[in-house]
Amino acid sequence: MEVATGKKGRFITIEGGEGAGKSTVIAKLYEELKTRGVDVLLTREPGGIDIAEKIREIILNPAHTQMDERTEALLYAAARGQHLAEKVLPALAEGKLVLCDRFIDSSLAYQGHARGLGIDAVYQINRFAVGDCMPELTLFFDVQPETGLARINASRGREVNRLDLEGMRFHELVREGYQLVMERDPERFVVIDAEQPMEQVYQSALQALLDRL
Amino acid sequence: MEVATGKKGRFITIEGGEGAGKSTVIAKLYEELKTRGVDVLLTREPGGIDIAEKIREIILNPAHTQMDERTEALLYAAARGQHLAEKVLPALAEGKLVLCDRFIDSSLAYQGHARGLGIDAVYQINRFAVGDCMPELTLFFDVQPETGLARINASRGREVNRLDLEGMRFHELVREGYQLVMERDPERFVVIDAEQPMEQVYQSALQALLDRL
Repeated sequence: MEVATGKKGRFITIEGGEGAGKSTVIAKLYEELKTRGVDVLLTREPGGIDIAEKIREIILNPAHTQMDERTEALLYAAARGQHLAEKVLPALAEGKLVLCDRFIDSSLAYQGHARGLGIDAVYQINRFAVGDCMPELTLFFDVQPETGLARINASRGREVNRLDLEGMRFHELVREGYQLVMERDPERFVVIDAEQPMEQVYQSALQALLDRL
Repeated sequence: MEVATGKKGRFITIEGGEGAGKSTVIAKLYEELKTRGVDVLLTREPGGIDIAEKIREIILNPAHTQMDERTEALLYAAARGQHLAEKVLPALAEGKLVLCDRFIDSSLAYQGHARGLGIDAVYQINRFAVGDCMPELTLFFDVQPETGLARINASRGREVNRLDLEGMRFHELVREGYQLVMERDPERFVVIDAEQPMEQVYQSALQALLDRL
């Protein structure tokens, strides 16, 4: 797919654990790029795409306690492929810069490593979904699980509790998963130190983006 | 998975194109096995499994004209994995003989070959879904597309029409797809000549099944 190689549009993704500040920063990046006259699309799966939204509803439905982890991973891949086909690829074909909040690497880190399905296996089903349309640049917002958790709790006005601590091991695994993914494909990633105050995180991300454009 | 190797239950699938008589014959096989005192489960995806049924609804919804073929293949694999986890594996663990009307080979023949996604690629996502739980025996009901179509039309009380003929090439590709799949894994398959009258098809299938049990 020509569109993915930067010949027309540019496909850039943002990744990271919980509380890394991705959503805050990506919204500011989007505004800044628009101000600079870049034709930019900000999206995240399922992104208002009907089929992808319906798939996501199946994943998130709390009644689905019997959901098999492999089924879930296949559903994430299916929603990803549909969002790509209906939203990302047409925007790239129009020459837009597409900023996508989470993409294939989230599945590799969360399902592949943290949930133990295997990074290779999850990579295969996702490559089936996305074909050659891989991002040319991925900003990885690197944050310690403790920092991310503290940020999330601060935004909700509450303290760290026992359940948070039990979830900590999972978030450590997610971070470890991202490290493994980055080792496989180091040229695609720029690591953003998301331990910094948010304004600094934003400036680092903007600089990394502008360096590449 | 021990259950798939015949150490407890037995997992047997039936495959073939349209009008091969699979549904008719599998219902008779089920009754015959029960009469012989075999503890048997007859199923076909999505098989009343809530999550699998909801996935199938997304696939079949006529409003989903934008459905990407890769998304569709991933959804079939997801529904397959869930039906397996919730219905087939528990039955095998109980020592049942599970007769499943269509399984992984349908996806390989239809999506992989006839729709052109590639047998290898579709095999990978399906092996992700089913793990090591492959059938120990698959009865392939082999019928010429013309014969299958004539049977379907007879059951609907109508003649072959222009649209039927246009669909013929697709059904030829499906049959070709099954041939390619059988070449990859010949020991798993028994070919049943489904050109015969239905009673003969049933007798051939029953004999093939009893020979293996």
